Amino acid sequence: MTPSSLDALIDALRCLPGVGPKSAQRMAYYLLQRDQRGAHRLAESLERALSSLQHCERCNTFTEERICQRCANPQRDARLLCVVEMPADLAMIEQTLAYKGLYYVLMGRLSPLDGIGPRELGLEKLLARATDGVVEEVILATNFTNEGEATAHMLSELLAARGVRASRLSRGVPVGGELEHTDSGTIAQALVERRTL
Amino acid sequence: MTPSSLDALIDALRCLPGVGPKSAQRMAYYLLQRDQRGAHRLAESLERALSSLQHCERCNTFTEERICQRCANPQRDARLLCVVEMPADLAMIEQTLAYKGLYYVLMGRLSPLDGIGPRELGLEKLLARATDGVVEEVILATNFTNEGEATAHMLSELLAARGVRASRLSRGVPVGGELEHTDSGTIAQALVERRTL
Repeated sequence: MTPSSLDALIDALRCLPGVGPKSAQRMAYYLLQRDQRGAHRLAESLERALSSLQHCERCNTFTEERICQRCANPQRDARLLCVVEMPADLAMIEQTLAYKGLYYVLMGRLSPLDGIGPRELGLEKLLARATDGVVEEVILATNFTNEGEATAHMLSELLAARGVRASRLSRGVPVGGELEHTDSGTIAQALVERRTL
Repeated sequence: MTPSSLDALIDALRCLPGVGPKSAQRMAYYLLQRDQRGAHRLAESLERALSSLQHCERCNTFTEERICQRCANPQRDARLLCVVEMPADLAMIEQTLAYKGLYYVLMGRLSPLDGIGPRELGLEKLLARATDGVVEEVILATNFTNEGEATAHMLSELLAARGVRASRLSRGVPVGGELEHTDSGTIAQALVERRTL
């Protein structure tokens, strides 16, 4: 007896990650009952984002132009290419103000369980970008999770086969970290990768 | 440096209940990267639901007609009116197959902290419905939470002032429940509201 357009909305909300049947129902009721303006705005921004956003031809991030402002900026050091998983990671690195090179955003990571292999990640585009003759070093800044590490490992092999120098963010004790409160895996890594002074 | 249509989408997703800035960002990336069809479908179902759904003139639930199919069904007992908070509650009661009367869906509950008082809940519409001369008993089936209890309490007073008989779902030990594993508040209620056999 549920009206079909309400059913369709509840069903459509389930495409959002982390939203199951109960939350989808709660969201639909909330939007229809308490925030119709928000719902209109959501529908419009979805359509606008879908029609206006594309992937930057150089760094693969979302942009409204063919090439994003960052890639088009001649002030950036084109010899350095930093590979990150998502735009949020790029934003974190930019916040450090410690990096002036360019980026490549994978928009994901290798994740065989979710059916995301090298082809789905579009690694060909990254390899073409990294072998443009200007890039001298690729900094692998994927996450230090199992999937991020696997992605970095595969990329380092692919890049080595093409004669491109690759590096990885260092692992170790966080700045301000006390050994007493650092997990043993991190301390072990910091020992193995200790720096000569 | 985030494209404005991406920013707008992330912002619009935050109108969903329980979605903060981090989840909104994750949802936006997911939709744009992995489920553009789902995003289109979501935008369309939002617009369709907003334009086609209205509140049933009699029971206040969402419907695509002026009066919903349940209210228009002459097989239902029009002398009984069951008041619930949300359509999901109505669905639970229908599943029992133990009730053949009609419903009134509040689409919420009294919640002073969220600014939802008697006026926002539209209690006038319910009171007009309950005093149509056909309804003989109003069954208050709001939740047994603080807010649901407060709503039932206020409704029972408003109905009593209008000479309409009101009742409340019974509280007590759940069917199949063992006293050893029932909370003491429920057992106390079951004692106070014990039935004479």
